[in-house]
Amino acid sequence: MNYSGAFIPTLREVPADAVIASHRLMFRAGLLRKLANGLFAYLPLGLRSFRKVEQIIREEMDAIGALEIKPTVVVPGELWKESGRWDSMGESMLRVKNRLDNDFVVSPTAEEAFTAIVRDELSSYRQLPLALYQINTKFRDEIRPRYGVMRGREFVMKDAYSWHTDDKSLDDTYQAMGRAYRRIFKRCGLSVIPVKADSGAMGGSGSEEFMVESEIGDNTLILCKKCDYAANSEKAACAPDFTPSSSIEDAKAAAVNTPAFEKIDTPNVKTIDELCAFLKTEPQTFIKTLIYRAVNVELDLSSAPACAKLQRKKPSAEAPAVYTEAFFAVAIRGDLDVNEVKLASALKASEVSLASDTDVVRLTNTPVGFAGPVGLTALPLIVDRTVTGMNDAVTGALEKDLHYKHVAYGRDFTAWMIEDVRTVKAGDHCSLCSGELYTKMGNELGHIFKLGYKYTRSMNVSYLDENGKSQMPIMGCYGIGVDRTLASVIEEHHDEAGIIWPVSVAPYHVIIVPIKYDGAVKESADKLATELTSAGIEVLLDDRSERPGVKFNDADLTGIPWRVVIGDKGLAQNIPQVEIKRRSEKDSTMTDLDKASADIVKKIREEIARLNN
Amino acid sequence: MNYSGAFIPTLREVPADAVIASHRLMFRAGLLRKLANGLFAYLPLGLRSFRKVEQIIREEMDAIGALEIKPTVVVPGELWKESGRWDSMGESMLRVKNRLDNDFVVSPTAEEAFTAIVRDELSSYRQLPLALYQINTKFRDEIRPRYGVMRGREFVMKDAYSWHTDDKSLDDTYQAMGRAYRRIFKRCGLSVIPVKADSGAMGGSGSEEFMVESEIGDNTLILCKKCDYAANSEKAACAPDFTPSSSIEDAKAAAVNTPAFEKIDTPNVKTIDELCAFLKTEPQTFIKTLIYRAVNVELDLSSAPACAKLQRKKPSAEAPAVYTEAFFAVAIRGDLDVNEVKLASALKASEVSLASDTDVVRLTNTPVGFAGPVGLTALPLIVDRTVTGMNDAVTGALEKDLHYKHVAYGRDFTAWMIEDVRTVKAGDHCSLCSGELYTKMGNELGHIFKLGYKYTRSMNVSYLDENGKSQMPIMGCYGIGVDRTLASVIEEHHDEAGIIWPVSVAPYHVIIVPIKYDGAVKESADKLATELTSAGIEVLLDDRSERPGVKFNDADLTGIPWRVVIGDKGLAQNIPQVEIKRRSEKDSTMTDLDKASADIVKKIREEIARLNN
Repeated sequence: MNYSGAFIPTLREVPADAVIASHRLMFRAGLLRKLANGLFAYLPLGLRSFRKVEQIIREEMDAIGALEIKPTVVVPGELWKESGRWDSMGESMLRVKNRLDNDFVVSPTAEEAFTAIVRDELSSYRQLPLALYQINTKFRDEIRPRYGVMRGREFVMKDAYSWHTDDKSLDDTYQAMGRAYRRIFKRCGLSVIPVKADSGAMGGSGSEEFMVESEIGDNTLILCKKCDYAANSEKAACAPDFTPSSSIEDAKAAAVNTPAFEKIDTPNVKTIDELCAFLKTEPQTFIKTLIYRAVNVELDLSSAPACAKLQRKKPSAEAPAVYTEAFFAVAIRGDLDVNEVKLASALKASEVSLASDTDVVRLTNTPVGFAGPVGLTALPLIVDRTVTGMNDAVTGALEKDLHYKHVAYGRDFTAWMIEDVRTVKAGDHCSLCSGELYTKMGNELGHIFKLGYKYTRSMNVSYLDENGKSQMPIMGCYGIGVDRTLASVIEEHHDEAGIIWPVSVAPYHVIIVPIKYDGAVKESADKLATELTSAGIEVLLDDRSERPGVKFNDADLTGIPWRVVIGDKGLAQNIPQVEIKRRSEKDSTMTDLDKASADIVKKIREEIARLNN
Repeated sequence: MNYSGAFIPTLREVPADAVIASHRLMFRAGLLRKLANGLFAYLPLGLRSFRKVEQIIREEMDAIGALEIKPTVVVPGELWKESGRWDSMGESMLRVKNRLDNDFVVSPTAEEAFTAIVRDELSSYRQLPLALYQINTKFRDEIRPRYGVMRGREFVMKDAYSWHTDDKSLDDTYQAMGRAYRRIFKRCGLSVIPVKADSGAMGGSGSEEFMVESEIGDNTLILCKKCDYAANSEKAACAPDFTPSSSIEDAKAAAVNTPAFEKIDTPNVKTIDELCAFLKTEPQTFIKTLIYRAVNVELDLSSAPACAKLQRKKPSAEAPAVYTEAFFAVAIRGDLDVNEVKLASALKASEVSLASDTDVVRLTNTPVGFAGPVGLTALPLIVDRTVTGMNDAVTGALEKDLHYKHVAYGRDFTAWMIEDVRTVKAGDHCSLCSGELYTKMGNELGHIFKLGYKYTRSMNVSYLDENGKSQMPIMGCYGIGVDRTLASVIEEHHDEAGIIWPVSVAPYHVIIVPIKYDGAVKESADKLATELTSAGIEVLLDDRSERPGVKFNDADLTGIPWRVVIGDKGLAQNIPQVEIKRRSEKDSTMTDLDKASADIVKKIREEIARLNN
């Protein structure tokens, strides 16, 4: 391809709203243009790389036996009403009414469409397992789209779904997907961090997110300096930094030398810091007691303290019964924070948040700041594991300006439920190897998870098993954002001058830069381009009548992995020479013109083999 | 690929609403399923063929230097307001408001998006010509979607747009596109009829439609039995079947022996047929005079009879000035019909239709059925060319129950405008070779046309020419429906038993059918599949434990071009034999197992070469 006919409008200026490298470089290198806020058009150079990412994903999906299909982008709203997500998806889902007043959705994801297709075709266990995928347009109406295609409104996603007769079969496909995802990112030249993630609103358990480190990431990752432990902070665990008690007896025994608890006056002292200053001690010696409000609690509370009057309700025939609202006290060591995602998960609640001051006063009969576990009867008490190792602590006394000292878990109070609800922080230690933990900000590129029966139940999917009995299949779900993956490649591979494409996703493999596209130089450049092209190498030939400096700058900016410069001086040598330079390296080498083609082909094949291996 | 893992849900039954072969067979062969009225999901087998059609289109676009880009499917409504089509597109365009109350369009076509992209990048004449295309999702909210993907709501279209400094450059690209389209359809195994089409609401002139014959076609095609003349009936011309006069003098001379016209009593005679019966003559001897109402007439009427009081208005700043409503009389030979598309084109009107009876009476001061050209002053008179050869005709006399006989054009009345507005019918003769014309119903697969300045003007696109002067580029526009092309392949290539794929777009090239997938048969089948696959042939191996009859039926239904049957009997021969059958042929041949692979590879390559040639 000749540069002059390739429509590569490079820019010197950086778009004003482009704060991250990929956004800046995709615009400057002429890969992308903006149609509106969050809506981008890929130009020829950008689309070439985009299609390569798509193709790598397609090959790896096909390799594990997943089958590509193509539902529509605009899907009937009826399907979303069946699954219940018409109501639960919120405003980021673009809803449309057509001229006949029918409801449609511009797909943000496709569990419903895929499940509807499979529902109609599935009859026998012999058809399972089945894994289907699409690489197709999605739309999410982000309120604040930004960072270019990293958080756009319209994007392309590979989404796969699988159906199984049992957990074992689901796990096999789930593991195969995990391996395929690792290969996909490796082939794209990306360093991803696979982390255990909370599966959030998607339902089900067993999930892994594929993250890349990013200054503008949505996720805090907890990583170990010694081993490869990685987790989303929402779910991360750490090694205990205390000696927990294994039973009430154990706890009582540990408190045998602790004096009986006693009230202390703490006038106008409300926060842990004030208390530390007042008592001249450390936060680790306190038990903090927080009151939480939880919404849509699935956990059975019929035997929980003070919950006898709560009523469970079914929001719809298909949905599980839930307590619309319930309150809980959470006791945790004074230096730690409660992780609300862990807490919600323990309660099987859709949401938890700190109770309002009014609720705290109403429920504890005490001003805010003096709640404590001793003598608390108005609420079920959830005790973080850390507290089970505390046998001489300070706590609120459920009275204004008063605390207790010498409080021991097991002796002075017990838990309704013991759970790990602490937020893990940098400096905590790894639960696997005791290495020190640290944090990174991460962006999610892919997510695989076990959906369970959420959609097959709500959408009535069934098959006949070996015994002719009707069964419901279990599902898995596996997504990758194509645009975000492409942008992340640029985030990881660039320098001040521009992009540095890995060969596998480069728009072209080689850029040939004739110093002046004329005479013998033109002839050699054309010949080399032809030789490389016939060996399957993708060549961009800079045929423009621009100054060499302009051409070199554009070659660096667009990031083509190999650059060959051809000039009169090199050609005039005894054995004609050309200059070959790898974009990722600083130095170039002179090579015989005759050998240049074979040399480049060899190096590119080696590079692709290395990425594919 | 093993059949058992390929998700090919074939059906015995025909969907109730499937009236055409492609719709029936795409469902029965498991290529497609319905998500909602007009919304279809391609299953794995269908998508494989779909992608091949896409790829053929992509290769041919790339070959003529068009560059692929990817704008979004959902585009800002602002762009459509700029072009004026937000108002003119009607209800088939799916409009959406997002959560911020911004207007969006689910693209039905992409003149606006492409023009917006080019507008921002275009600066110099050196960037032109430029041709860009996409292969992307489109949506048109058909009121009555039907015939499967032949007329669906969501579909995939290849749409290309080009920009040029002058007509010559536009014509070069237009011709190259025409040649590329012919190659695309040939490679897909399709017989298309390229016809001159009316460019309708898209604006501009110079257009060609690529039609396939179809019983359910939207278009009537006029074709010549002798030469390759083909036209949409909306635009078709024919050889004159009369002697036209070349001037008024000529006409007067031809009427030299015609008696002066005179009134005749024709009581209760209103129609041409009644008049023929009453006067015992043929319709060819009558001049029929019809009153038409035209809407949004661009033609200058300032000097037209009885139009002095009409006012031209500009509907918007960018739109041309038009007469909102105007009436015309059209005189045509009694045996012919007026072609309203030709008439609208002559008047540069957006729409023409017969005037209401009330309007006829008001304008001619005569009951309906007695209008005539002699003495008509209240309306501009458009005379069809046929009438210029009539020198002794019968016409209405502008009085109830009265006609004139012996009326001669030129002597007794003249025209405000002489035009060809006749509808060409089967039996008329070709204007090129005088061969007899006949008609077919056709479906449009592709359309190329010269758009002119419609979008570059309304959207303010400009570049600097050689002299540094700002100029507006001229545009062309080129579309192909991918789904419709695929369905048309099936329409042209099928029989009672199923599809008969051309190799180029077949989902697989070869289906291997082991009589029983076991023992030596399994071994030979696997080996053959491996050999073919390593030669680049796409193989479907029917590994199911179904009866041979079921496998044969599915092989015929899914239409894989080559079938290889392997059984114990053939393998037991001195030299082991397999049966090879072409789907398109009735008879099979026995071939040495050892030679089967080479034989099939050769035949498939020949077939692809024939289609590509």
